[in-house]
Amino acid sequence: MSHDPRLARLSTAEKAALTSGSNFWHTTAVGDVPSILVTDGPHGVRKQPAGADLDLGASEPATCFPPAVALGSTWDAELVGRVGAALGREARAMGVSVLLGPGVNLKRTPLGGRNFEYYAEDPLLTGVLATAWVQGLQSQGVGASLKHFAVNSQETDRMRVSADVDERTLRELYLRAFQRVVRQAQPWTVMCAYNRINGVYAAQHRWLLTEVLRGEWGFEGLVVSDWGAVVDRVASVHAGLDLTMPGPDDAGDRALVQAVEQGELDPADLDTAAARVLALVDKAVAAADPGATYDQQAHHALAREAAARGVVLLKNDGGLLPLPRQGVSLAVIGEFARTPRYQGGGSSQINPTRLDDALTEITTLTSAPVVFAAGYQPDGTADDTLLAEAVAAARGSDVAVVFVGTAHETEGRDRDDLDLPAAHRALVEQVAAANPNTVVVLSNGAVLLTSPWDRAVPALVEGWLLGQAGGGALADVLFGVVNPSGRLTETVPLRLAHHPSHLDFPGEAGHVRYGEGLHAGYRGFDAREQEVAYPFGHGLSYTTFGYGQATATVSGDVIEVRVPVTNTGDRDGREVVQLYASLPGSPVRRAPRELKGFTVVDVAAGQTAEAVIRVDRADLAYWDPRLGRWAVEGGGYLLAAGASSRDLRASVTVEVTGDDTRAPLTGDSSLGEWLADPQGAAVLGQALAASASGNSALAAMAADPGVSLFLASLPLSRLAKFPGSTFGPDAIEQLVAAANA
Amino acid sequence: MSHDPRLARLSTAEKAALTSGSNFWHTTAVGDVPSILVTDGPHGVRKQPAGADLDLGASEPATCFPPAVALGSTWDAELVGRVGAALGREARAMGVSVLLGPGVNLKRTPLGGRNFEYYAEDPLLTGVLATAWVQGLQSQGVGASLKHFAVNSQETDRMRVSADVDERTLRELYLRAFQRVVRQAQPWTVMCAYNRINGVYAAQHRWLLTEVLRGEWGFEGLVVSDWGAVVDRVASVHAGLDLTMPGPDDAGDRALVQAVEQGELDPADLDTAAARVLALVDKAVAAADPGATYDQQAHHALAREAAARGVVLLKNDGGLLPLPRQGVSLAVIGEFARTPRYQGGGSSQINPTRLDDALTEITTLTSAPVVFAAGYQPDGTADDTLLAEAVAAARGSDVAVVFVGTAHETEGRDRDDLDLPAAHRALVEQVAAANPNTVVVLSNGAVLLTSPWDRAVPALVEGWLLGQAGGGALADVLFGVVNPSGRLTETVPLRLAHHPSHLDFPGEAGHVRYGEGLHAGYRGFDAREQEVAYPFGHGLSYTTFGYGQATATVSGDVIEVRVPVTNTGDRDGREVVQLYASLPGSPVRRAPRELKGFTVVDVAAGQTAEAVIRVDRADLAYWDPRLGRWAVEGGGYLLAAGASSRDLRASVTVEVTGDDTRAPLTGDSSLGEWLADPQGAAVLGQALAASASGNSALAAMAADPGVSLFLASLPLSRLAKFPGSTFGPDAIEQLVAAANA
Repeated sequence: MSHDPRLARLSTAEKAALTSGSNFWHTTAVGDVPSILVTDGPHGVRKQPAGADLDLGASEPATCFPPAVALGSTWDAELVGRVGAALGREARAMGVSVLLGPGVNLKRTPLGGRNFEYYAEDPLLTGVLATAWVQGLQSQGVGASLKHFAVNSQETDRMRVSADVDERTLRELYLRAFQRVVRQAQPWTVMCAYNRINGVYAAQHRWLLTEVLRGEWGFEGLVVSDWGAVVDRVASVHAGLDLTMPGPDDAGDRALVQAVEQGELDPADLDTAAARVLALVDKAVAAADPGATYDQQAHHALAREAAARGVVLLKNDGGLLPLPRQGVSLAVIGEFARTPRYQGGGSSQINPTRLDDALTEITTLTSAPVVFAAGYQPDGTADDTLLAEAVAAARGSDVAVVFVGTAHETEGRDRDDLDLPAAHRALVEQVAAANPNTVVVLSNGAVLLTSPWDRAVPALVEGWLLGQAGGGALADVLFGVVNPSGRLTETVPLRLAHHPSHLDFPGEAGHVRYGEGLHAGYRGFDAREQEVAYPFGHGLSYTTFGYGQATATVSGDVIEVRVPVTNTGDRDGREVVQLYASLPGSPVRRAPRELKGFTVVDVAAGQTAEAVIRVDRADLAYWDPRLGRWAVEGGGYLLAAGASSRDLRASVTVEVTGDDTRAPLTGDSSLGEWLADPQGAAVLGQALAASASGNSALAAMAADPGVSLFLASLPLSRLAKFPGSTFGPDAIEQLVAAANA
Repeated sequence: MSHDPRLARLSTAEKAALTSGSNFWHTTAVGDVPSILVTDGPHGVRKQPAGADLDLGASEPATCFPPAVALGSTWDAELVGRVGAALGREARAMGVSVLLGPGVNLKRTPLGGRNFEYYAEDPLLTGVLATAWVQGLQSQGVGASLKHFAVNSQETDRMRVSADVDERTLRELYLRAFQRVVRQAQPWTVMCAYNRINGVYAAQHRWLLTEVLRGEWGFEGLVVSDWGAVVDRVASVHAGLDLTMPGPDDAGDRALVQAVEQGELDPADLDTAAARVLALVDKAVAAADPGATYDQQAHHALAREAAARGVVLLKNDGGLLPLPRQGVSLAVIGEFARTPRYQGGGSSQINPTRLDDALTEITTLTSAPVVFAAGYQPDGTADDTLLAEAVAAARGSDVAVVFVGTAHETEGRDRDDLDLPAAHRALVEQVAAANPNTVVVLSNGAVLLTSPWDRAVPALVEGWLLGQAGGGALADVLFGVVNPSGRLTETVPLRLAHHPSHLDFPGEAGHVRYGEGLHAGYRGFDAREQEVAYPFGHGLSYTTFGYGQATATVSGDVIEVRVPVTNTGDRDGREVVQLYASLPGSPVRRAPRELKGFTVVDVAAGQTAEAVIRVDRADLAYWDPRLGRWAVEGGGYLLAAGASSRDLRASVTVEVTGDDTRAPLTGDSSLGEWLADPQGAAVLGQALAASASGNSALAAMAADPGVSLFLASLPLSRLAKFPGSTFGPDAIEQLVAAANA
């Protein structure tokens, strides 16, 4: 990479200039190397007109696809790939070379202000969907920017806070989606995060940006900074950060030149960064197509399809849904039905090509009377008159459909609680009291507590933020034009205090300790045997599914699980079959179950289809911090398929051959470990016998059960510290050599 | 200390020899410096006869006082002090100069195998009681050894495991009891732990053994190693470890000499350690009294008093207890009634001067018929015949008293679960089914789960391990000779999985992460709003107490809270009044409530007494890792008095003047922080106004609410990275100087 012949023709200053932007959204042109345009994403193309760098409302119109919170709830990689390709077409038509997405940070806490831009509280689900998105986008000659690398799980103090997380958790949870996307989709760019990780800024984290990202995962693209994330250009370039945004950064460019001249920065580091910018520009230039266009109507239709598939039917007592399209009068209640909440605030905000609302779409789909009542003020606050009108409307109709949710979620600010706003909760309670046939439709970018008010409501629809076509999508689901198949990608807890992250959010004194470690999200609820409102993976359909006997075949490093799924209802439907792995009796700490695969099956009423889920053996690995590598434990893995993490319906045990995870015996190994190892036990036994007299005190000690417990935990070399022992350093060295021979 | 004139007369080799033992239990005599004897404790004097260094059963008889689990449950510093003094008399009479105790490690997990040797899951309670114990012991001229310093919360892999804990948690929880005892009682010695702390062996932890223990807390005594804890003598002496046990450690002594000769160890470090040994020997010699004796009967009586006061009445539905001493026939069931479990295994194991059993003592106290049935095998396992006999005995008596518990708890091994053994649970369930008047008496060294079987049992007595006089003590409580006043020093959870430590115990790969951080014990149950079986501080009496209005006065650095406590029953009783502090709205993460004081009040039936609890302002402090010191937040502290952590009955708010905890503004301070500081806001405002043209982009950004959120979290110095900013390094330096002027 650093052998790009063009480098020889560039001065150090020109190389430095290449590695920072020329303005908010463009790279720097140098000589005959042109500038390219990058823009925010990820659920639409936010291209700012010249002179309005950050005026979010002024961006050029583009399709606002469902944000990741809804797209993720589809659990459908094929669909996500089509959305990615559509975004690629729009970006190319708008002259955009890199679209800043996808966001694959884990939803560590439901309070995360930017959760609507992320997929899930699980890294496998995130990684599979984001891979499809990147592949779709890049199929159109537009680069992705995988972000925010890494451990950017909160907005509070995001530009400084250190996410303090142990390496096993880091590897298995917070880096794992990045790893999958890099390996399987090679995004053109990766965007480093604002925050620090274990004390070091992501933008200066050489281990992260170079050793892991490139060295271990084989990333071939460019690392770009989040906007304003770079503190020290020299340290960042040395760490492996190639492009600093925004620009210009003349002072930083000069600092780089000076560092090279004074020998404080290896010229090869700057060459490498500059060469990566050149390579990115080459790719962009090769793919650019000034005549490219896209079909706005087709993209809107795709946005509606994806939105409907992202809706999660949480509750449907008595089959209140779907609503008939005639003969049942409806009270549509809540300002959000007329004025949709369809995306979050901040850099991902799209100026949509059109905007559907649920009220209009509902009225289109039914021939029965529809009355509307706003229920609350446009800003979401309470209004007694509107509330009374809503209750009256509910009382006068066959069914009440209430649209409520959060008024605002945005990048830059975490939420303070998970509560439905008081005015909305009062509306739900009073409408439900007035009409037992009440359907609640939620609009929210991340988890809301539903307990205890959902007890009074027979039907509950989680509508997330659905993008510009969400209104039609909700109408499709309410009337059964689409049979819902969305599933929760995060747990809905009974209380905020039950959440695994609760004790360590948002941190203090510049640090947020990831105290729950491996037990983020459903892993923690399961490990704590904590009841939840709705578990990870949950979502109902208008039909029902029966699971047959699961079978598994192992072929090389792939385990294939097959489960027959029968549609036992009278309506065609789509089931998201989820596969969770456990390893009973494992000496390695694990969550009770972890998602290891999933698939979507369409099954016609009364028919049976086979769900086929492939699990790579590598996805069963844990990170072994002793060995400093991934390792697969051997044993019988319980693979359980089901409709949610707490609704497992078919399981099969698969014997997996493990990796060798034994650490060599050393003087620091305990006597218990020596005796547990066949060769170690033999060698040590001989030594003890040979020096019986010298070790008589030891023998006496070993005879007492209380003392032998003490001895089992004693490191071999510590024996030398006890009276009567003849195990000096030389003897121990010989024992170690013999035991590991 | 290192200026002891005797040092000049000692060779380096003699100094080195002084700093290790001569055998298992003696220091090394050098020249005219005699050897002194130290022995295990803490709930009795375990003096091994010559030649039986570790044969635990062969120790000389001594009073087996209640282990710390029971002594702590008294919540009575005066009583604990008397036990300490009695131990001092016995030790002196047996020629023991240092008794190895008290153990003040926090009960981080109920699975901890050595929990019976520790006081509580709260550091204040631990520190207050252990201070009284040390003062009592040392009043007799016998030194204490405050152990195990520090963070030795588990047995699993205890000789190597690294307890990984953040500094705030370390300071506020795991070191805090040590700090209190050192400051208030100056124990002659502190014993370092086996384990590592954040990767460094306690025995080599200079920060811990020297900077904190001596530098900050003013410890004047000697640091002794736990037996076999020293890995590297040179590193340990440099860290501040003075005496390595056991000995002889000729190789280590030689290594010290060599290190001094080769300049690898400052001779002053060795001098300091040797001088501390000399000082300890001096104290021991001065206090020794070859003619000293002690009164075995009086000590046994004290052991009975303390044991009865350590019993916790968990449940007493319908006032089944106390039992009448006549006219009610009893079935005494369970081998533990005849063969008591009265202490745990390991180094603290005492060969008692006598041993009372509950069966005999019950028979002594009642004139009614008593039948006994063993119920299970002596080793605790099931036996159908014994079970059937027990059920028949229960059916044939007015009341059944069932003795069950854990068969064995020991140093060296953590427990695998918190369950009552299956045979004992079956016994309880079948006896309770046969006789509704069933009392269950537990014998156990640490928490047992009582849910759900306790629902079937009207009366539940937590008898812990009560020492040699426990049988009589239990009889005293059952018949109301003693009105119980013991309180839980640890939470009894509904499930093990609910425990705050559950996700991070016992660790793996050589590390145990204290993931729950500040939220150990009841702090975590409260923070997670988790239901429990019996909360921290819980314990019933045979009478009832009413709380009046709490009042508080502040005098200098002491807050004094007074609460009238009325005995509203018809029996004299003793109430343990607990005081918990909260600081509503504090920006510093805190547990919902923390124990800050407690006292014991004796109140005659129908009378009112005043509970007076003093809280030092310093005990309200938190450790501020930014400032690297303790700090008291200002504000209105809610001080709530009650009968348990979840039974708060009277509260008062006290305004406390806070310390200055503002950090100076820097370039790394965010714009939000600058604007929140009056002087910072003024300075920054002027600068922005003066350079309005240059910062027009900033002004435009700030006008957009979404962007201004972004700006609030932006460190001032990062402004320079955005186009149009004129805030270069020099400008920022001037702003910082002006803001902090």
